[in-house]
Amino acid sequence: MTDRATIAFDEAGTTVDAFHRGRFVLVQPARSGHRSGIDAMLLAACVPDGFSGSVVDLGAGAGAAGLAVLSRCPDARATLVENDALMAHCARLSLARPENRHLAPRGCVVEADVTLRGAARRGASLGDDAFDFAILNPPFNDARDRRTPDARKAAAHVMGGTMFEDWMRTVTAIVRPGGGFALIARPESLGVILPAIGRRFGGLRLRGVHPHQGAAATRLLVTGVKGSRARLTLLPPHVLHEKGRDAFLPEADAVNNGLSSLA
Amino acid sequence: MTDRATIAFDEAGTTVDAFHRGRFVLVQPARSGHRSGIDAMLLAACVPDGFSGSVVDLGAGAGAAGLAVLSRCPDARATLVENDALMAHCARLSLARPENRHLAPRGCVVEADVTLRGAARRGASLGDDAFDFAILNPPFNDARDRRTPDARKAAAHVMGGTMFEDWMRTVTAIVRPGGGFALIARPESLGVILPAIGRRFGGLRLRGVHPHQGAAATRLLVTGVKGSRARLTLLPPHVLHEKGRDAFLPEADAVNNGLSSLA
Repeated sequence: MTDRATIAFDEAGTTVDAFHRGRFVLVQPARSGHRSGIDAMLLAACVPDGFSGSVVDLGAGAGAAGLAVLSRCPDARATLVENDALMAHCARLSLARPENRHLAPRGCVVEADVTLRGAARRGASLGDDAFDFAILNPPFNDARDRRTPDARKAAAHVMGGTMFEDWMRTVTAIVRPGGGFALIARPESLGVILPAIGRRFGGLRLRGVHPHQGAAATRLLVTGVKGSRARLTLLPPHVLHEKGRDAFLPEADAVNNGLSSLA
Repeated sequence: MTDRATIAFDEAGTTVDAFHRGRFVLVQPARSGHRSGIDAMLLAACVPDGFSGSVVDLGAGAGAAGLAVLSRCPDARATLVENDALMAHCARLSLARPENRHLAPRGCVVEADVTLRGAARRGASLGDDAFDFAILNPPFNDARDRRTPDARKAAAHVMGGTMFEDWMRTVTAIVRPGGGFALIARPESLGVILPAIGRRFGGLRLRGVHPHQGAAATRLLVTGVKGSRARLTLLPPHVLHEKGRDAFLPEADAVNNGLSSLA
């Protein structure tokens, strides 16, 4: 534990939450920080079934998306990259939990800034063409939405002007040719996401996540392949609930629980 | 009839096709040119119910979308802009048909290039801030898809590199502040459409048109408001058919026939 984490961190202030119907758990700050949930499960579901190779989870938080990939894909390895010392510490605690014993040998945590460049990036375990797949859960909520007094929550939710560009520059550098990426964002960010992806990735696939049929999308999933020249596709929507009901639709429930993919 | 049209045009080579369950008809070349159908009806459906004011139909062809707006919105006027002399002539013939007598007083045809600039554009009845709403059915099919020997069909389907930019420049000029636009395109064009729209229009609303539930979108509808700062929204999809059936779903049928809008 780093000094900074020691100061900020009270292990009694964490929760241990079960995901994938108990097939793995996550240690998270109980009251502060960005608590993981459906978004991370949706992002993880963008990694194809049967995926074999290395996944890098950029902005991993406590590790929800990366661990969800390890849980569904037994031949995947995952590097969890998180810049916030407390969240990175939670990710380490998550990997150390006995419930995650079956996943831990395939996971590691890197405490680093996703936007590092060049030698600094390579020095932080983010080597050129080093990964088969990148998953990104960037701090995507607009400053207009959330004005929270919690600085950590703010850092996790407020998107800077060049954030997608900075993150995609790293993705472009560290994913091997033919490798893929997936990101989750708000639909309103589409106009900055597409230019940030640029021409280094093709075969883009967009999928709206809609709370129920007939409602506008609240999230957008984007995937792509490095070096592909295939065209952009708008996939059918992923619908979470029946209108007026809290329960998830069977397909959404299967995705939330690592029983089917969205790839 | 212009000399050019007289030379090129054999009225015996046209068809008269009923739309909106016979509430209007369209004169179209039988075998050449871009024949109108569902795309034009989807585009017209993006004009809100009860719309009152002036619509400009850019790339009007024989006038399908513009006439569909006139048919559904009794307080709308429509300027049909078409650069191809034969298609513009078809649009004039359409307006002159007895079946369209109820619409003709609210329509007019302008034979002009949508990409004209400055004084040339203004001189072609496309004045600054002159319209309340623009609808665009640009020649959006990629050259890779259709290699047709029919030059007119090719002109209507093959999209040049700066086409969306050129068309949106005109839209920006001729739509009044607070006015709207709607366009129909292939989803794959999204990456060039969003930059072409730029910052002069906001409140963008995207809607995929899917052949059936679970299929990728084959068309994309985009609307926006000049000067709006509202965020981009990804609307629920518009689904045309039940899987494996030719018949349109009731909602799609209502849209095709001018009985409900997609706005």
